[in-house]
Amino acid sequence: MNQSVTNANIKKVNSSSVEAKEDLVAVEEPLEIRIGYGPASERQQIRLAVTMRTPGHDFELVLGFLFTEGILTTYDQVESIKYCLDGGKAEEKDNVVRVELIPETVFDQTKLNRNFYVSSSCGVCGKSSIDSVYTKCSFINESFVIPTALLHALPAKTREAQLVFEHTGGIHASALFDLNGNLKLLREDVGRHNALDKIIGATLIKGDVPMANTILLLSGRASFELIQKAAMAGIPFVMAVGSPSSLAVELANKTNMTLLGFVRDERFNIYSGAHRVDC
Amino acid sequence: MNQSVTNANIKKVNSSSVEAKEDLVAVEEPLEIRIGYGPASERQQIRLAVTMRTPGHDFELVLGFLFTEGILTTYDQVESIKYCLDGGKAEEKDNVVRVELIPETVFDQTKLNRNFYVSSSCGVCGKSSIDSVYTKCSFINESFVIPTALLHALPAKTREAQLVFEHTGGIHASALFDLNGNLKLLREDVGRHNALDKIIGATLIKGDVPMANTILLLSGRASFELIQKAAMAGIPFVMAVGSPSSLAVELANKTNMTLLGFVRDERFNIYSGAHRVDC
Repeated sequence: MNQSVTNANIKKVNSSSVEAKEDLVAVEEPLEIRIGYGPASERQQIRLAVTMRTPGHDFELVLGFLFTEGILTTYDQVESIKYCLDGGKAEEKDNVVRVELIPETVFDQTKLNRNFYVSSSCGVCGKSSIDSVYTKCSFINESFVIPTALLHALPAKTREAQLVFEHTGGIHASALFDLNGNLKLLREDVGRHNALDKIIGATLIKGDVPMANTILLLSGRASFELIQKAAMAGIPFVMAVGSPSSLAVELANKTNMTLLGFVRDERFNIYSGAHRVDC
Repeated sequence: MNQSVTNANIKKVNSSSVEAKEDLVAVEEPLEIRIGYGPASERQQIRLAVTMRTPGHDFELVLGFLFTEGILTTYDQVESIKYCLDGGKAEEKDNVVRVELIPETVFDQTKLNRNFYVSSSCGVCGKSSIDSVYTKCSFINESFVIPTALLHALPAKTREAQLVFEHTGGIHASALFDLNGNLKLLREDVGRHNALDKIIGATLIKGDVPMANTILLLSGRASFELIQKAAMAGIPFVMAVGSPSSLAVELANKTNMTLLGFVRDERFNIYSGAHRVDC
């Protein structure tokens, strides 16, 4: 099993001293996702994607990825999920995950091509990117209201629970809270999109998607890709420690999602859905 | 022309006040890269990739991307580069860039598939990822030495030059310095890989790749993808404000690149190539 952290021999330098020591860094390794699909008589397999990720919760990562790309809608569509090697090199064995879809699951590769924002086109302007997501996710109509004081407390709760960050000082996290501010789930990864896919995959396995009545905290910036994933999963309330992009704000507005940015030091900015914040 | 920043109506909330105001956010928009290639008699075109980026320096971004993916080795291989619309929607017109390669440029699509780390396989373990990059880039053998005090000053110089960050409080930057600590080039983008591609593309146009005798500063974490791009461009010295990943450290070691992390407040850690730091 791959580890999430590993040792590195470093020199720590400041204005007055240099110290050679052993330190920990977050592990980054490729993960290949393979899909088996189609009726038993004409079963097919494709290599769907490779993502650079921090090992740990790999099945959740894969399922969250497949869900947010629109390939899966429920966990019931998965016949099996496992690590596979198939004659590859021994050192690859923890880095290939194979998902067998049940024969009834329609897997349309051409449809898939429109979903990968990095590798193909969903219409090449912000508006069409948003429209493309909007047609696949639901308008968020939950009307709860969260007190400001509760929100101010969530970054510290996230940080306390971040094991890998504590050891390495640098890794992204996604944290999921209930409406009372209780931490339900935390995942860490060198890729911020992976950390969120792990959260969504774990919730998909439990059958709790769409993720009504949840608050998601992102440790970094809020890009379109992250808000797209949150929208696909029906998360009504998203807070980012960093800044949101223009397209992230537009998508949050369009789906009626609450989006906060710069959540730190008992401050934040509300970019969308202010009606859910009691301030 | 697309802008790099745009307005957002926000509410600024802290423990004691709520203020409705207009604020600026960094723009994020898709950019599609198309390639025309082959001899005149059988010219072909493909849609190569779509990346979410902050508009500005798009041609540099495209050229840097093509270079770091191993599709181009020199700027001479480019016949033309321009925005194109080709019957698409009007709002897409600043979001599609078409590069015509000279007929002599060999463009091998199957080779390409091995290069996109997010969408295909280069061997699915850290070691094979590193080997794959290593075969394409040169071992760095420059032997200059930089004083610690000069390095401590570079984050502040970068921050001062960051126009979009100043306005939005959140965007990635790549900054290129000479060995005396003079800022040569700075690029900003919502995607950290795009900011670096823009730097490398700009340098490719000038004919200055491999980028000997340069220091690169990254505003965020140092992932494998970023160190891979730096290695392809022959950058001998990389400093990251955030932490490096395990694979980033391994690749820096393998190529003899100097890699510093946590560069802030007159401190840093040396992960690789300590012989280039006078401390």
